[in-house]
Amino acid sequence: MSEIVFLIQSEDSKGLLAGISSFFYEQGFNILSCEQHTDLPTNRYFMRVALDVEDLSYSSEALERQFAELAEPLGLEWSVHYPNEVARVAVLVSKASHCLYDILAKQSEGVIECEIPLVISNHPDLESVAQRFDIPFRHLPVSRETKAEQEAEILNLLRENAIDLVVLARYMQILSPAFLRAFDKPIINIHHAFLPAFQGANPYRRAYDRGVKIIGATAHYVTEDLDEGPIIDQDVARVSHRCGPEDMKRMGRDVESVVLSRALKAHLERKVIVFANKTVVFSV
Amino acid sequence: MSEIVFLIQSEDSKGLLAGISSFFYEQGFNILSCEQHTDLPTNRYFMRVALDVEDLSYSSEALERQFAELAEPLGLEWSVHYPNEVARVAVLVSKASHCLYDILAKQSEGVIECEIPLVISNHPDLESVAQRFDIPFRHLPVSRETKAEQEAEILNLLRENAIDLVVLARYMQILSPAFLRAFDKPIINIHHAFLPAFQGANPYRRAYDRGVKIIGATAHYVTEDLDEGPIIDQDVARVSHRCGPEDMKRMGRDVESVVLSRALKAHLERKVIVFANKTVVFSV
Amino acid sequence: MSEIVFLIQSEDSKGLLAGISSFFYEQGFNILSCEQHTDLPTNRYFMRVALDVEDLSYSSEALERQFAELAEPLGLEWSVHYPNEVARVAVLVSKASHCLYDILAKQSEGVIECEIPLVISNHPDLESVAQRFDIPFRHLPVSRETKAEQEAEILNLLRENAIDLVVLARYMQILSPAFLRAFDKPIINIHHAFLPAFQGANPYRRAYDRGVKIIGATAHYVTEDLDEGPIIDQDVARVSHRCGPEDMKRMGRDVESVVLSRALKAHLERKVIVFANKTVVFSV
Amino acid sequence: MSEIVFLIQSEDSKGLLAGISSFFYEQGFNILSCEQHTDLPTNRYFMRVALDVEDLSYSSEALERQFAELAEPLGLEWSVHYPNEVARVAVLVSKASHCLYDILAKQSEGVIECEIPLVISNHPDLESVAQRFDIPFRHLPVSRETKAEQEAEILNLLRENAIDLVVLARYMQILSPAFLRAFDKPIINIHHAFLPAFQGANPYRRAYDRGVKIIGATAHYVTEDLDEGPIIDQDVARVSHRCGPEDMKRMGRDVESVVLSRALKAHLERKVIVFANKTVVFSV
Repeated sequence: MSEIVFLIQSEDSKGLLAGISSFFYEQGFNILSCEQHTDLPTNRYFMRVALDVEDLSYSSEALERQFAELAEPLGLEWSVHYPNEVARVAVLVSKASHCLYDILAKQSEGVIECEIPLVISNHPDLESVAQRFDIPFRHLPVSRETKAEQEAEILNLLRENAIDLVVLARYMQILSPAFLRAFDKPIINIHHAFLPAFQGANPYRRAYDRGVKIIGATAHYVTEDLDEGPIIDQDVARVSHRCGPEDMKRMGRDVESVVLSRALKAHLERKVIVFANKTVVFSV
Repeated sequence: MSEIVFLIQSEDSKGLLAGISSFFYEQGFNILSCEQHTDLPTNRYFMRVALDVEDLSYSSEALERQFAELAEPLGLEWSVHYPNEVARVAVLVSKASHCLYDILAKQSEGVIECEIPLVISNHPDLESVAQRFDIPFRHLPVSRETKAEQEAEILNLLRENAIDLVVLARYMQILSPAFLRAFDKPIINIHHAFLPAFQGANPYRRAYDRGVKIIGATAHYVTEDLDEGPIIDQDVARVSHRCGPEDMKRMGRDVESVVLSRALKAHLERKVIVFANKTVVFSV
Repeated sequence: MSEIVFLIQSEDSKGLLAGISSFFYEQGFNILSCEQHTDLPTNRYFMRVALDVEDLSYSSEALERQFAELAEPLGLEWSVHYPNEVARVAVLVSKASHCLYDILAKQSEGVIECEIPLVISNHPDLESVAQRFDIPFRHLPVSRETKAEQEAEILNLLRENAIDLVVLARYMQILSPAFLRAFDKPIINIHHAFLPAFQGANPYRRAYDRGVKIIGATAHYVTEDLDEGPIIDQDVARVSHRCGPEDMKRMGRDVESVVLSRALKAHLERKVIVFANKTVVFSV
Repeated sequence: MSEIVFLIQSEDSKGLLAGISSFFYEQGFNILSCEQHTDLPTNRYFMRVALDVEDLSYSSEALERQFAELAEPLGLEWSVHYPNEVARVAVLVSKASHCLYDILAKQSEGVIECEIPLVISNHPDLESVAQRFDIPFRHLPVSRETKAEQEAEILNLLRENAIDLVVLARYMQILSPAFLRAFDKPIINIHHAFLPAFQGANPYRRAYDRGVKIIGATAHYVTEDLDEGPIIDQDVARVSHRCGPEDMKRMGRDVESVVLSRALKAHLERKVIVFANKTVVFSV
């Protein structure tokens, strides 16, 4: 990855694509890829532009200053991301190890590009998994009484470690609105159901009780409304009457792992824009 | 199909398989296929046995009498189905034609084995579709005021035509509890969402608003609780931020058609047992 | 659909997106959607631009003349398609009716937008299907001896009916290279296997013999190399040891129908560009 | 798992199910699950019976002796597996780590029940992965000249470690016929293509060159015919024109891991019978 990525959104109007692409052309950039989307009901325009970093002939500050001059009159909201930025990710877990294993393996193989300086859990069980990948593990137990205190400790750890993104890899606690407001950076959760079906606790048990023939998993950004944040990715697996709740849980593991790591990868590669509690997920 | 099919359920106990299979062996039958399932939480045993009709050396009444003697002490609930029984199916529709086309095409090709003597709709739009397949079409418009009357007309038509099964192929009306109790035969509905997500009206609109990445369809038996009857089959299709509600509706068509015709086929081939608001769907 | 669509390809170079999008902006067009792709190994650039036809303030000839002036120095290969162009499609079949039903139903519902003035078959079986949709059916039997003659008759019919596209909807004959050269317009075929597996005859039989656990279907443009033309779409269905060749054939029907109609729809909506025996299939 | 599993096959004949199930009933067993399959073209009968080990009131030798008395006159081929048997599995790898990580994580979590006393590789790269799970790693480099020698070393290690099953988890070497005959126990391979498409080397490259829209992976037993052994499981992932060979390789990783571990799990749970270069894979 040697790409500079611009993520842009604004009200839609004639000439946005021409104006923006001409700007990059005039600045000497080769556009490696460019993808647009217009949300018709809201007349909203979304754009992801990837530039060859080799074409950057001046400072990044100068690039941003120049782009700001284009962006302001057009009313563009935008962010720019450079190839040397590597996100620092904390993974929060409880007892289930499969998503943690999948993320750590993919990170160690370079498939998911980020740093993972910290695994936090409310249970001690997965310490050995973190150790296997030489990642510091912090056990912060929590009870109803100690929740505020525990979240304060988590927050401190996230700040000390300069964490950019939190991944809830089957962390079975609900983060408080106060925590979410204090952290104020993206948090990705994997819910072990096909949202909006089976929001909340025990989705496999409830899927079994309802007699569904397909189970699913949903990766979404965490908001104050439990399981109602913007969905990044979903996938499913077929089940039958033969599957009890424990079978579903076991069969759901691979779906959960795959969906969570796909969502994490899309986020880290700057392919996701959130708007109106939904996501635009670019394919290039 | 030259199979005699027994569908059996009972409390689970040792020796059921031995007892039942030995009975058929002693009566001279070759067991073409046999599938069992035990639901552990309820200790319930389910079985589907397919016999070669060529091996039936006496009358079907005698077979049933003999089997009843075995079944009574074991507490078996059972039904038997002969190859010459062809179910008579009525299809209820509104304006969307895709499920109707799919069922009529598959029936005319022999993929779905049944008779379809009747298509009923609350709108006139699909009359030409039924005519294309030479099937009588009855237009029975309905309003809040005329609902009881219209349902009485439907019921009369179902009875006059000796209908065994009703298929709601995108019939956009809710059948009243009174109707369901009066008809008292199975009704299969296709819901254009991945139940239990988006029960009720406008599921594609709500799927769009929620920003899901996968849409689905669910075929289920109709009960008095709207969209909460036993699920027979489900399937899904991937969507993206590019899909508006109309795109989802269009993309959902194939999923709806396929799921409904799979469920209908399974039902007609005597592969479905309902228990505790869920289904056992045998694979052979 | 009130879109003017430009399909463009050329060698990749800096400034293509800026140049082309600026051209349309200067001509007063709102770009409804725009999608690009660069094939890195061949350094080839592909683009699909959809414009609002309401913005066309002069003649289409003038638009094309102006665009040609831009295109020539840049070395663009391009075509333009207007909303009032409706493709005329001929469907060739043999005995299997499912793909024909699916296409005719979708066309009659407006899901697939084209005219279908002609169904041709080497067997009489499907005449009633065509009649159900009031489409002329021509039975042109073929044997090894009469092949050249039969193909000449087909060619005449295609020309008389001003056919733009031929769809082989389970037409079980191989069209000769001479025919393909003489017709010289696109032909889409559905192959009942997951190409390049099981090229040629009897794919379900061979899939069964090989013991595969998944079967598939492939829609592709026809070239002189049997089953080796550019693939437009593929899909699969899960099978098991329980499925004999006839079961696979039956289960494959829905996959074949869905894949063929998706490919046909993509082609008709000007979303497909062929290059190097492969396809770029745009999503918008 | 506290099940005794019988895997049985024979020529099909009337009374097999009655005879076998009655035997187990008379011996006092509760049949936990029972699944049958008849392959009609070959008239072959397959059966998997799971018994509650608690019901074993005498020695396993006695059980086998008694069953042999039933089996001999009926011509049954059979094997029996007890819950205390834990298979010893060696994993062979080269440089790609994803399948190895997946197997080791699932084994350490108890999802895949076996012992893994040994990882062997022709490259040193994955030593750290094995170490993370405290599993001995042996680096046995191989060249054309040293192949016989290296395979002899592998064979020694397999024997010293009493290995029951070898898993080729992206081991990029072809095992010689001599090795296969000498080892004479099952070997499961993951091929990174949807067999029989793209047998042999570089399947992703060739899939890219062919322009397929779906890629796949195949787990199969190894035989002397490269990539032609009995298929246990397959799965696929959708790709597009945007995917180069490296993207396909990356996207194929999850499919490979999931298919291989599903196949391994089915094998270890005694759900697979091989016959006529195909597999019967029982679902219970």
